[in-house]
Amino acid sequence: MEADLFTLPWVPVNIGGSDLLAKAWFGDTKYRLLLSDLNTVWEEDMSADDIQSRAQDLNKRLRAPTQAFFSHLCSVAKPCFSSRNDGQTSAAHVVLEQCGDNLTVKLKSELAGLPFYWEFRCTAAPVGVVCRQLVRPLLAVTRVLQLQGEDLAALLARKDAEIQDYQENGAVLTRARLQTEPFEVHKYKENFFTKIVPQMGVTLDSLGFDSELQALYVAVSSGKTGPKRKRSPDSSPVAEHDLVSEHHKHGTDVLTDVGSSLASQEQNDVKGSSGRPQVAHSKQTVLLPSTTAAGSEERSTSRPKKKKVVGLFR
Amino acid sequence: MEADLFTLPWVPVNIGGSDLLAKAWFGDTKYRLLLSDLNTVWEEDMSADDIQSRAQDLNKRLRAPTQAFFSHLCSVAKPCFSSRNDGQTSAAHVVLEQCGDNLTVKLKSELAGLPFYWEFRCTAAPVGVVCRQLVRPLLAVTRVLQLQGEDLAALLARKDAEIQDYQENGAVLTRARLQTEPFEVHKYKENFFTKIVPQMGVTLDSLGFDSELQALYVAVSSGKTGPKRKRSPDSSPVAEHDLVSEHHKHGTDVLTDVGSSLASQEQNDVKGSSGRPQVAHSKQTVLLPSTTAAGSEERSTSRPKKKKVVGLFR
Repeated sequence: MEADLFTLPWVPVNIGGSDLLAKAWFGDTKYRLLLSDLNTVWEEDMSADDIQSRAQDLNKRLRAPTQAFFSHLCSVAKPCFSSRNDGQTSAAHVVLEQCGDNLTVKLKSELAGLPFYWEFRCTAAPVGVVCRQLVRPLLAVTRVLQLQGEDLAALLARKDAEIQDYQENGAVLTRARLQTEPFEVHKYKENFFTKIVPQMGVTLDSLGFDSELQALYVAVSSGKTGPKRKRSPDSSPVAEHDLVSEHHKHGTDVLTDVGSSLASQEQNDVKGSSGRPQVAHSKQTVLLPSTTAAGSEERSTSRPKKKKVVGLFR
Repeated sequence: MEADLFTLPWVPVNIGGSDLLAKAWFGDTKYRLLLSDLNTVWEEDMSADDIQSRAQDLNKRLRAPTQAFFSHLCSVAKPCFSSRNDGQTSAAHVVLEQCGDNLTVKLKSELAGLPFYWEFRCTAAPVGVVCRQLVRPLLAVTRVLQLQGEDLAALLARKDAEIQDYQENGAVLTRARLQTEPFEVHKYKENFFTKIVPQMGVTLDSLGFDSELQALYVAVSSGKTGPKRKRSPDSSPVAEHDLVSEHHKHGTDVLTDVGSSLASQEQNDVKGSSGRPQVAHSKQTVLLPSTTAAGSEERSTSRPKKKKVVGLFR
């Protein structure tokens, strides 16, 4: 069941005034939800039967089949679990309640002119889930970023070789302020750690998971979801070693998409940037590859469906 | 108790044939140990009394006080929990046993001419420990590395401005092969994700935690351990928000040390590097700031003490 969530990034959300990281997958009358405050991870996994049963408990007069109200539930719930930066707002009133190990997200909305109640009743996720959904992907992302740093350092060395050739042949700058120091990776790293890192304001309690990190996370985590192998929502759970080997087989397709979305994000980010690094607070959500989620067609609509809902309540 | 471990990096180890990540802190006749295979995290926290009691259970004829055999235990145990790349070997025979949620590291060594047995009996760590020791620091490390990437991209833009000035004033390369393309961050990222990342071999099941990542981990995790504020091993546990605020106050000292050690590491790494990024398998361990661990003087000796041990057994 957890496999559907591998292909989604964590996104920073604010639920009832609390900052959390969220991963929510909505399928065909079922959903899976992960929430974390970086102290605990909570999860809920609901089938169509579970949803039907809870909907009737919470809405005594509701007699509709699950399909009839699930699209409404999605439309009010998805904005709650989408990045707080992407401007989606939920039509529901949202309250977050923590009780012992459990975390409940209570929604109150309106359906067919009557109040519609829903509760996401999340329980503490085991360490295995935390390792698969956070520790392993984050460790892989750090390796990708380390290698990117090495790659950029190698490019700087090539720039210096070009500059040196001009200089050795007598070229002189017309604007002296454009002169750069030769890049020395060890000096650079020392300066970076002593001067720049302390000013970054990177703290251990930040829930920062920006759009680039979301793309990196998806790049290292997904792989089961290449364009040619769209998995049906009802297929069986996938063992992790399968995901890893699939990652190798289909990695290029997924990464192409992620690369493109990152590139377009970067084109916006780069405008107005100065030479000084800043923590990016992009207003954009990353454009996930359209095939990353088995239920992606469900996720593409964020506003309540306009279809008239009648006869859901008695 | 866990606070002592914040200041130590995870290191890749091989215990009895199994690859794990480890964090071990040895104090004055006490220790704390964390082990992980990235599916589970195990922990053990032992006081002097606990150690005395277990030593007598496992070694019936032993009647020495804890201090008398603890240095021997450290000398044989520490190499087991040190980076597999730093060449330390333990004089003990080591067996790893997993039983249910527990993981036991059994050591058999020789002390004063008689066999000396020890068992590290680790139990599954709760999610809170996994979040504090892995998730939060790794998330912070990714942000530091993202910002490093932005900083390097800004440097490349400055190199291009210098090159452009030479070219606009008629400078021509004597060696055409030195010519570089102007750096365009969005094109670069697209190429990086589509061409380079898939060849990196970064997988979700790798226990890679190289020396640079160890230094980054320490940089974001420590902060309680500035040179002027050496904490006694018996001080009370520190709430995490204190650690975070201390990180801001004393970050510079710690980061200076980390920066220096990274710089010297980088000086070695850079030799023989080609323009192509490679996963670093450094044989070096990073030189941790000497003040990072309250028990650092304990950690500095890795070989059995030469002091003659007599009368430990009856």
